[in-house]
Amino acid sequence: MQAKELRGQSVAENIAEEVKKHVAEMKQKGLQPTLSMIRVGDRIEDMAYERSAQRRMELCGICAQSEVLKSDVTTEQLIRVIKQNNEAKNVNGILLFQPLPAHIDMEAVKEAIDPVKDVDCNNPLSSARMYLDDEEALIPATPGAVMEILKHYDIALEGTNVAVLGRSMIVGKPLAMMLLNQNATVTMCHSKTKNLAKICQEADVIVSCIGKPKFITEEYVTPESVVIDVGINLDKNNKLCGDVDYARVAPVVRAITPVPGGVGSVTTSVLAQNLLKAFHMQNR
Amino acid sequence: MQAKELRGQSVAENIAEEVKKHVAEMKQKGLQPTLSMIRVGDRIEDMAYERSAQRRMELCGICAQSEVLKSDVTTEQLIRVIKQNNEAKNVNGILLFQPLPAHIDMEAVKEAIDPVKDVDCNNPLSSARMYLDDEEALIPATPGAVMEILKHYDIALEGTNVAVLGRSMIVGKPLAMMLLNQNATVTMCHSKTKNLAKICQEADVIVSCIGKPKFITEEYVTPESVVIDVGINLDKNNKLCGDVDYARVAPVVRAITPVPGGVGSVTTSVLAQNLLKAFHMQNR
Repeated sequence: MQAKELRGQSVAENIAEEVKKHVAEMKQKGLQPTLSMIRVGDRIEDMAYERSAQRRMELCGICAQSEVLKSDVTTEQLIRVIKQNNEAKNVNGILLFQPLPAHIDMEAVKEAIDPVKDVDCNNPLSSARMYLDDEEALIPATPGAVMEILKHYDIALEGTNVAVLGRSMIVGKPLAMMLLNQNATVTMCHSKTKNLAKICQEADVIVSCIGKPKFITEEYVTPESVVIDVGINLDKNNKLCGDVDYARVAPVVRAITPVPGGVGSVTTSVLAQNLLKAFHMQNR
Repeated sequence: MQAKELRGQSVAENIAEEVKKHVAEMKQKGLQPTLSMIRVGDRIEDMAYERSAQRRMELCGICAQSEVLKSDVTTEQLIRVIKQNNEAKNVNGILLFQPLPAHIDMEAVKEAIDPVKDVDCNNPLSSARMYLDDEEALIPATPGAVMEILKHYDIALEGTNVAVLGRSMIVGKPLAMMLLNQNATVTMCHSKTKNLAKICQEADVIVSCIGKPKFITEEYVTPESVVIDVGINLDKNNKLCGDVDYARVAPVVRAITPVPGGVGSVTTSVLAQNLLKAFHMQNR
């Protein structure tokens, strides 16, 4: 039985279409939703994500501006730039590429981002709002993308068992909370979990965000499994791959997201959604 | 096989002993840790908890003062009292009895409590700190009591499966986070969970905080189960009982907390622990 491939592209396009419609209305009122991207140095990964975010924002009618700082920028200088963006009336969201160089005080920098403009959910207060199920919470893009994929492909969550593999503050924990809010029964698994294969087999949906290339094999799944692969890793041949061994798992499950072309391709649309939400919170 | 009864009393006494030692040191320096309790009206349950907290604080050398407001107090008046306590240099913690009368704006009142004095974890910011695993977090007393019982009776958590039944912001969710921080694999169950009995049977530890009298019966457990009963309910004969049908479950499990005499008897000690922590945060 061939699994249904849950591709991200149509999910991303649907979200973008919706955002675009709302942005067009704002523009008619003379308003221009704007994202400010801050990049430190010239990391290839940052530049690739910057281009991809830029393209998505443009498609949605959102203005995306880039500020590039030298990689020897100090924490104080970086915070000053963030604060300028906090105060700028024409900036609705701030996207700071990460990881930052080792000499930067990450925590201080994250806390400097005004929660009302924190479209990438970096400030701990933003995570906290999500945990508290605050309607003003801006959700982190990656778990947001997972939820959008599940919704788009009509994968029911209420009363189902979902195994979340990985407990990071940026993906695993917020995702568990979001799934719980949708009435799923959530099992939070991690590196200390015993019998992981058994827990995964008993789950209706498996979401892996552990960052281990091709870790999930056919022993972890059943023909009924829905597998969402959040991992973005390099395999032995330096080829992009997920946490799931796609070639072995895809043929034997109900549905699966590919890597690339799955969760990762939806994140910039969730970012655009967040930007629009931030814009509305700032303009009411 | 007779189960081991996990009584709360010795857990509470050990914690109190430890707190008392630290408080004595503070007193030698001329400092007096102080809890301010605010009660609205004369609910029997509030008055019982007030007495019990008063007694525990006294045993620890902590000064506990009570302020009683009439049950027709307005939200504004109540918030004014809270703010006086926030500002009072000689008050280290604020305990507000709940539920409050229906006319009171609960959310506004909770948010008025200064997080650094919020020893009962009422302000959403306090919950958020716990979620973020902030070392300054004051943990809510009931999940704190569950963790203390597990620690006291040497019940290992790392790598074990724990089923948490109930997802309230005051018990279930924070407890799940605390268990996860101890490297347990946590399954968050609730009213929409299917196959709850099976999930419980597969767990090493079951913690029930659902508020349904005698809901958990022998079908939910195995001879290896450790059962922690957070429920405080009234049965058909108006007798105090937990979520667990103790008479049926106790004989067939590895260990179980009684109700009363279990989790509930540890909460005031966790409160005293929190008060001491709050005191230290305010005096460094």
